[in-house]
Amino acid sequence: MFFHRKELQFHAKPDRPDPVFAKKLQEILGGQFGEISVAMQYMFQGWNTRGNEQYKDMLMDTGTEEFGHIEMIATMIAQLLDDAPVEEQEEAAKNPVIESIMGDMNPQHAIVSGLGAVPKDSNGVPWNAGYIIASGNVLSDFRANLNAESQGRLQVARLYEMTEDKGVRQMLSFLLARDTMHQNQWAAAIKELEQKEGFTAPSTVPAQWEATEFSHQLMNFSEGEQSANLNWLKDKAPDGQSFEYVSEPKAHGGKPELKPAPDYMHNTLPNMDKQ
Amino acid sequence: MFFHRKELQFHAKPDRPDPVFAKKLQEILGGQFGEISVAMQYMFQGWNTRGNEQYKDMLMDTGTEEFGHIEMIATMIAQLLDDAPVEEQEEAAKNPVIESIMGDMNPQHAIVSGLGAVPKDSNGVPWNAGYIIASGNVLSDFRANLNAESQGRLQVARLYEMTEDKGVRQMLSFLLARDTMHQNQWAAAIKELEQKEGFTAPSTVPAQWEATEFSHQLMNFSEGEQSANLNWLKDKAPDGQSFEYVSEPKAHGGKPELKPAPDYMHNTLPNMDKQ
Amino acid sequence: MFFHRKELQFHAKPDRPDPVFAKKLQEILGGQFGEISVAMQYMFQGWNTRGNEQYKDMLMDTGTEEFGHIEMIATMIAQLLDDAPVEEQEEAAKNPVIESIMGDMNPQHAIVSGLGAVPKDSNGVPWNAGYIIASGNVLSDFRANLNAESQGRLQVARLYEMTEDKGVRQMLSFLLARDTMHQNQWAAAIKELEQKEGFTAPSTVPAQWEATEFSHQLMNFSEGEQSANLNWLKDKAPDGQSFEYVSEPKAHGGKPELKPAPDYMHNTLPNMDKQ
Amino acid sequence: MFFHRKELQFHAKPDRPDPVFAKKLQEILGGQFGEISVAMQYMFQGWNTRGNEQYKDMLMDTGTEEFGHIEMIATMIAQLLDDAPVEEQEEAAKNPVIESIMGDMNPQHAIVSGLGAVPKDSNGVPWNAGYIIASGNVLSDFRANLNAESQGRLQVARLYEMTEDKGVRQMLSFLLARDTMHQNQWAAAIKELEQKEGFTAPSTVPAQWEATEFSHQLMNFSEGEQSANLNWLKDKAPDGQSFEYVSEPKAHGGKPELKPAPDYMHNTLPNMDKQ
Amino acid sequence: MFFHRKELQFHAKPDRPDPVFAKKLQEILGGQFGEISVAMQYMFQGWNTRGNEQYKDMLMDTGTEEFGHIEMIATMIAQLLDDAPVEEQEEAAKNPVIESIMGDMNPQHAIVSGLGAVPKDSNGVPWNAGYIIASGNVLSDFRANLNAESQGRLQVARLYEMTEDKGVRQMLSFLLARDTMHQNQWAAAIKELEQKEGFTAPSTVPAQWEATEFSHQLMNFSEGEQSANLNWLKDKAPDGQSFEYVSEPKAHGGKPELKPAPDYMHNTLPNMDKQ
Amino acid sequence: MFFHRKELQFHAKPDRPDPVFAKKLQEILGGQFGEISVAMQYMFQGWNTRGNEQYKDMLMDTGTEEFGHIEMIATMIAQLLDDAPVEEQEEAAKNPVIESIMGDMNPQHAIVSGLGAVPKDSNGVPWNAGYIIASGNVLSDFRANLNAESQGRLQVARLYEMTEDKGVRQMLSFLLARDTMHQNQWAAAIKELEQKEGFTAPSTVPAQWEATEFSHQLMNFSEGEQSANLNWLKDKAPDGQSFEYVSEPKAHGGKPELKPAPDYMHNTLPNMDKQ
Repeated sequence: MFFHRKELQFHAKPDRPDPVFAKKLQEILGGQFGEISVAMQYMFQGWNTRGNEQYKDMLMDTGTEEFGHIEMIATMIAQLLDDAPVEEQEEAAKNPVIESIMGDMNPQHAIVSGLGAVPKDSNGVPWNAGYIIASGNVLSDFRANLNAESQGRLQVARLYEMTEDKGVRQMLSFLLARDTMHQNQWAAAIKELEQKEGFTAPSTVPAQWEATEFSHQLMNFSEGEQSANLNWLKDKAPDGQSFEYVSEPKAHGGKPELKPAPDYMHNTLPNMDKQ
Repeated sequence: MFFHRKELQFHAKPDRPDPVFAKKLQEILGGQFGEISVAMQYMFQGWNTRGNEQYKDMLMDTGTEEFGHIEMIATMIAQLLDDAPVEEQEEAAKNPVIESIMGDMNPQHAIVSGLGAVPKDSNGVPWNAGYIIASGNVLSDFRANLNAESQGRLQVARLYEMTEDKGVRQMLSFLLARDTMHQNQWAAAIKELEQKEGFTAPSTVPAQWEATEFSHQLMNFSEGEQSANLNWLKDKAPDGQSFEYVSEPKAHGGKPELKPAPDYMHNTLPNMDKQ
Repeated sequence: MFFHRKELQFHAKPDRPDPVFAKKLQEILGGQFGEISVAMQYMFQGWNTRGNEQYKDMLMDTGTEEFGHIEMIATMIAQLLDDAPVEEQEEAAKNPVIESIMGDMNPQHAIVSGLGAVPKDSNGVPWNAGYIIASGNVLSDFRANLNAESQGRLQVARLYEMTEDKGVRQMLSFLLARDTMHQNQWAAAIKELEQKEGFTAPSTVPAQWEATEFSHQLMNFSEGEQSANLNWLKDKAPDGQSFEYVSEPKAHGGKPELKPAPDYMHNTLPNMDKQ
Repeated sequence: MFFHRKELQFHAKPDRPDPVFAKKLQEILGGQFGEISVAMQYMFQGWNTRGNEQYKDMLMDTGTEEFGHIEMIATMIAQLLDDAPVEEQEEAAKNPVIESIMGDMNPQHAIVSGLGAVPKDSNGVPWNAGYIIASGNVLSDFRANLNAESQGRLQVARLYEMTEDKGVRQMLSFLLARDTMHQNQWAAAIKELEQKEGFTAPSTVPAQWEATEFSHQLMNFSEGEQSANLNWLKDKAPDGQSFEYVSEPKAHGGKPELKPAPDYMHNTLPNMDKQ
Repeated sequence: MFFHRKELQFHAKPDRPDPVFAKKLQEILGGQFGEISVAMQYMFQGWNTRGNEQYKDMLMDTGTEEFGHIEMIATMIAQLLDDAPVEEQEEAAKNPVIESIMGDMNPQHAIVSGLGAVPKDSNGVPWNAGYIIASGNVLSDFRANLNAESQGRLQVARLYEMTEDKGVRQMLSFLLARDTMHQNQWAAAIKELEQKEGFTAPSTVPAQWEATEFSHQLMNFSEGEQSANLNWLKDKAPDGQSFEYVSEPKAHGGKPELKPAPDYMHNTLPNMDKQ
Repeated sequence: MFFHRKELQFHAKPDRPDPVFAKKLQEILGGQFGEISVAMQYMFQGWNTRGNEQYKDMLMDTGTEEFGHIEMIATMIAQLLDDAPVEEQEEAAKNPVIESIMGDMNPQHAIVSGLGAVPKDSNGVPWNAGYIIASGNVLSDFRANLNAESQGRLQVARLYEMTEDKGVRQMLSFLLARDTMHQNQWAAAIKELEQKEGFTAPSTVPAQWEATEFSHQLMNFSEGEQSANLNWLKDKAPDGQSFEYVSEPKAHGGKPELKPAPDYMHNTLPNMDKQ
């Protein structure tokens, strides 16, 4: 059950409107690694957690915070769109700066949302739930979360470079900080889990299920032996075993030949190419 | 530039057809964390790598291998579909087992692909490129890869539980092994990168850009103080700083009020609700 | 800014597991008119509201409630999946009921989410933001909301018919009630807005922009005159004007002929079909 | 069964080409509330209508008309694209206006469609059937239709503001008029249905299915009591009952705790976080 | 401009309901090569045709017919769903046939559409406009059309095998016939165009634009020389030239090395892997 | 099983960066008819081929080549993005050319991929597997391939017009040549198959399944008799039969009336519109 407080978690007010930057900022709202993604990912992980109440609680904490980040960015975008010039006017036609803004902003910010944020990425592609994962295996999922916060912070840093607006940068500075925290948080929990469960996820696969002769081979499918010299290859693997380098990977399976399709499939007749 | 060898990397032949399992196996072919995803993800990461030739080489190695895994699973699915009963016949109508198979298999395996694999997940949703990431930041991307191999191995383990076919299990045993290797591989390279660059991705963000007072706070947005007791919270954070627990997160931003929209947007008139 | 309370808004516990019904229940979680849709729709409408603070507040109230409904349904689905039989075992093979459940449940509930809810519809199609609208015009958006609550309540009623589980029905009885409220709520606000702004959205279009001779004509594009007898056609239109019935709609535009494409488009040469 | 007349329903000829506006106009062709959406929505509602022949007829009438609107807008877009400057030429490079047009137009209008309309929105996202609804419940569906025509007319009004081309505006004036009619039409039919069936859709839910104590409560999930003062809250609800304001909504369900997953799911072991 | 006649183009009435077959039949309504695809494809090709009026007319003829096919199949699906057993009842629970139908039918046919057709494929994936093409080059597009009618007729033939219902088969026999016609139609028009324009599309590419030394080489990227023996390789190519077989394709481009990214991109530092 | 050679199949180096053209070039990488589409289409067709080993081999040859084309274009895009100006700087603000490039390039090339290619089209829509087909019927699929190579070559030709960069044009000249080859290749194989199997796909449909009286009729659904004069109509059809022109197509099916829905569907009550 959720409650809403009307104040924002952090300042989200630009110094001045910038509808073209509004379009770019959509990426961290409704893009693959935007705030909708992390909010929904943490929530579904939390709701699906079975028997690990502390982790569930942590997931709900951080997921709930991320909903507040969606709100901040949506509010920022709306203000970047304030009074965006979308009218075709004589004046505008004479003003190449205005003309350029009209051409470069996301047309849906005017036509569809009436100067408001949309749940879409910086190219206008709608957010979809194919971006997120909640697998029930907490170690795997925390690795997904560490990735999401790494990609997210990278995108925030790039957006920081793309604007000189102090108000926007202030909000981005907060997001950078929270992404730093969340990278640390998931990594700390990953370490805890790896120490208890072991490195390889899922930890519950019996050894006899696995063709272990292939479990530590780096296979060189790209011509040349450059990969033989990778530094990490000489160290112990994270699971404590030794890596092995395979210069010329073998084909362990034969050449497959499928049975002809039954007549009722109306596939091409067999051996049509040989007749 | 790529070359193809006709033999498979590993055995991919079921003991007997099982069209219902063929539907399930589609998940690791064309699902979010199926082989198409890892193959395409590693390739795009490789092609976008700038100035880190060894990593690029490793990405091309493993990406090329994954294309061979797509081939193995597609071949397996085609054979699981051999002679699948899709005809409505008197005989079938009398045989509840056949009737049940016809109802439970993916209808597109008969109607669309003629008893062949499709680039879709276990519910028939087409694979899409929104699943993958290649950001140009290698540390972030290797974290994405570690996640993908964790989720992938988890799904293979679950599928292993769902069949007793020895031929299918043999192929899955190979995939388990390769996913073990790839988890170790990306984790080893992540460790290497973290030691050089530092833990937090991207490592190049100047400290003054970040509202660092928020960079290590665990904020408790979920009622109750359970998260205060998380073990990892007491340890050093992965970046060497100390974590801080915030029991009652504050609203640092004010209550936002947006400007009324300009007339030419035809939004609702301002204060319509107060009149 | 949002906060989470660990208790659910309402009971969400089935009397017994039912993985096949779990698949169906996904529709009102992650389908076109599921709880994710209404939660996100009300939120974005709230965040984009300009100068109508009471409406904004109401939108945030109801949107926040809907996040709690996502939580209830996700929790219900996880419990419907408790101990779902996904292992292929000798025992199962002999038990047609178990075999049937394994064939009929959503395979991703086992392979992908580990017996948890997914943000997808009853066929496994991921939720996407193309389902929702926040236009900045409150009257138009409240009509979208009235529709969403009508479709949502209809789907809940149908699901109620499809189960006899008392725990599930109890949760559905709550959702029916809240959908009743929300239909009443949006309709009451619509009425208020129509009385102030006028019926036709948006109300701000100058009359001279509109080809008003076509503004009240029912055009009969379907052979036969049956539509002439529609009862409502004889009443005043909601905007106070009179309807008009057009038996044989005219073509007011001529037959279009496009200019040949410029050479640099490499379209087919003009009049290729006449040579 | 359908027939085509070569003349357009209304004039669709711009005064002069404008490839940048062509991109924007795509929104009302292939966007969420474009003409493809209403045409397909009314058709599917008509085909699925069971036993309400007059409504079916009306749906086919209006759906058929909307196909003609798709045709008008597609024709308009093709002409706005006449001779669009897509060649990179010395001349163009020197002419910033042409350069700007080349940068701002939809690249697919040149590369994919050869100066023709595409079934996509103003950002190039393909139309998809997730936009539409045909539920079999006519009251619910007519509410969907009233919404679609409200959003559609709003978008047309905004596009009218964005151009000064008289030919384009003439076509938009016709679309404004038809959207006025269709808002009136669906609202009139909704009123008729509500009078017969009752306000709440679907009308066939037995009272005992519903937790009626929650059927008229406005729940205040957003901090502060502002929503208590909503005017409509003091009036009778549309279904004749009285609204009730709940200042502090309660959690009627307990704190959920899920059972640990069975071993064969390979989820994280239970209580891994407490060890 | 379009008109509707209430009668169907052909009989579309099943002998008896079959909700499981209704799910399968959705493929040729809303699948990749279903009737929505061909209707929309021919329409957009027609609307985008520039200066080839006879072809435009033919496209509108056949596109309009295909809308009538959508209607037939939608009507058929609704009747296959008549009285589908979706209630959970004691009786049903005792009847394994009914239980099996409830598990195998598309749940959205009950929950979403109220026993009506949906614009989706046989797995419930919504139709989207990414399936279709209208390029402005008529020869290319007619090749797309020939493919669509080939895939469509193949799917109809497979569905014919899957049912013994005489009413359904009667409708499918009509669709088989029309697909035969349309294959012939597009092939005849392709031949006409190839004779005028030449074989290779588009015909307007100047020879000096093309690296013609590669224009007729079959490159053997798959180990072994089997492809050298393809019969058609010995004949003249369709454009009148001679084919050439390349046993070992060369790499004509060098090994690419990208420049390091600029600092402001926050990519991984260059040569991080060599340090 | 696949292997990678580090050299590119052909030169892929632009004379100078051009981030706006990089956006356009994405169309032939990740668009509907881009290189990902043909690579995946030929691969899946090869893997699904049953009993036609030579065709399978040819499909693997050409599919493998197309992966090399993805590589070339991805490499080209990365270089077109070299040093793209994405920083907001005083200098840039003063330089309208730089400002224009920043507005016109794909924002994801900076924010998401760090100056690398993305698996998306020229509008940023992710590639999806709904673009491709592998049906098991080789004749049908080769027709799909001929279409894909025609659309692909058309798009390459248009892109050639849009740039004057010699390096880009050199790569495009190679792609034009390979598309010429592949059009010839699939057409030659189609001819071979048609001679053996017959023209109409699939060739295995018994005559008595088909309502043959409709198999050669051109139906005139578009007002006017223009289509009666099509030249090809007077020739023999490709399958050797004669075409027939139907001026006024008849409705062979009656007017459909559906049964009222059962009560448990909660559809609108029957005849609600007549009361």
